[in-house]
Amino acid sequence: MAKPSAYIEKVTRELSRLPGIGGKSASRIAFYMLGMDRPAVERLVNAIIELKDNITTCSVCGGISDSGVCSICSDPGRDGKVLCVVEGARDIFTIEASGEFRGLYHVLGGLIAPLDGIGPDELNIQPLVNRCGSSKPEEVILALNPTIEGDATTLYLAALLSPLGIKVTRIAHGLPVGSDLEFADSATVAKSIEGRVRI
Amino acid sequence: MAKPSAYIEKVTRELSRLPGIGGKSASRIAFYMLGMDRPAVERLVNAIIELKDNITTCSVCGGISDSGVCSICSDPGRDGKVLCVVEGARDIFTIEASGEFRGLYHVLGGLIAPLDGIGPDELNIQPLVNRCGSSKPEEVILALNPTIEGDATTLYLAALLSPLGIKVTRIAHGLPVGSDLEFADSATVAKSIEGRVRI
Repeated sequence: MAKPSAYIEKVTRELSRLPGIGGKSASRIAFYMLGMDRPAVERLVNAIIELKDNITTCSVCGGISDSGVCSICSDPGRDGKVLCVVEGARDIFTIEASGEFRGLYHVLGGLIAPLDGIGPDELNIQPLVNRCGSSKPEEVILALNPTIEGDATTLYLAALLSPLGIKVTRIAHGLPVGSDLEFADSATVAKSIEGRVRI
Repeated sequence: MAKPSAYIEKVTRELSRLPGIGGKSASRIAFYMLGMDRPAVERLVNAIIELKDNITTCSVCGGISDSGVCSICSDPGRDGKVLCVVEGARDIFTIEASGEFRGLYHVLGGLIAPLDGIGPDELNIQPLVNRCGSSKPEEVILALNPTIEGDATTLYLAALLSPLGIKVTRIAHGLPVGSDLEFADSATVAKSIEGRVRI
């Protein structure tokens, strides 16, 4: 089997390291790039380099920021009385896309996972406690994934923050909108019954 | 809805222009890149730039080449008596990956599609005729997609090359290996019966 081009092989190999891109997709993208005009390729490449060079961590929430304090933390229009705790910076984008939340965020940088050697001290938890002490939010919403580690971290944070007189809540777990009971797994159905709300 | 980072938005937008990458995958990859070490990002970016800068068209087969005549056309170990005609340069990689073919290739650069204004003159067909005249292959295999345009181009080339005394064949159309008759579409089943072979 001949390898007609080392350059195509190289791009394919590098692209297939990215998440969600297998060998066939990588090869398809490499050939697509071959047909792109040079300015379009430069836009892509420069965007990637700028991303690596310029993004920093927001000193307030621990999320990502283009410069110093992030645009959400520095926005006076946001409601500082509600703090939403998320696992990673990407979760902020997901919640912002829903348009449902107008408060501020706090990024943990992970979840408590004793088997992986990640305890509370490895996470951005002490700064959260300090922040709650100084800015005194009325409510902290824990928006962590409904997994074993997410649930453990949720319980840990609730036990830590409730004594400070803060209302601690967690996002609802249940059936996704537009889904079908028939295809839901039993753990999700159990959660949706346990978390039922009065109408 | 706040946009926490213009850099992430930009990379996400550029990535989502690539084939097979939607908005969610693009965002996932952008965040993944944020976590990659700088040398890994540079390897990716440089591979893309090198690809754009260095790949040329092989003057013999019309496929892609890293320099001048491609590695397949210049390989004395390949069988020059068999020529495989494909639509695009990428098809060469696909056929090479099967390990089944040891001859040479010829890239048409498209298929005859009158509705899109693509006739034989827009394709790499005259050079194919010239090549057949000078190198006198014993067999030309037409490996075009089993679509209306592919079939039309196959018939056109067969009518063009057969009078030159060349054996013209086309690749088999039928059930993919590992598939199930139950799930095959009727056009494929019809092709598989029409193209049945004696065992």
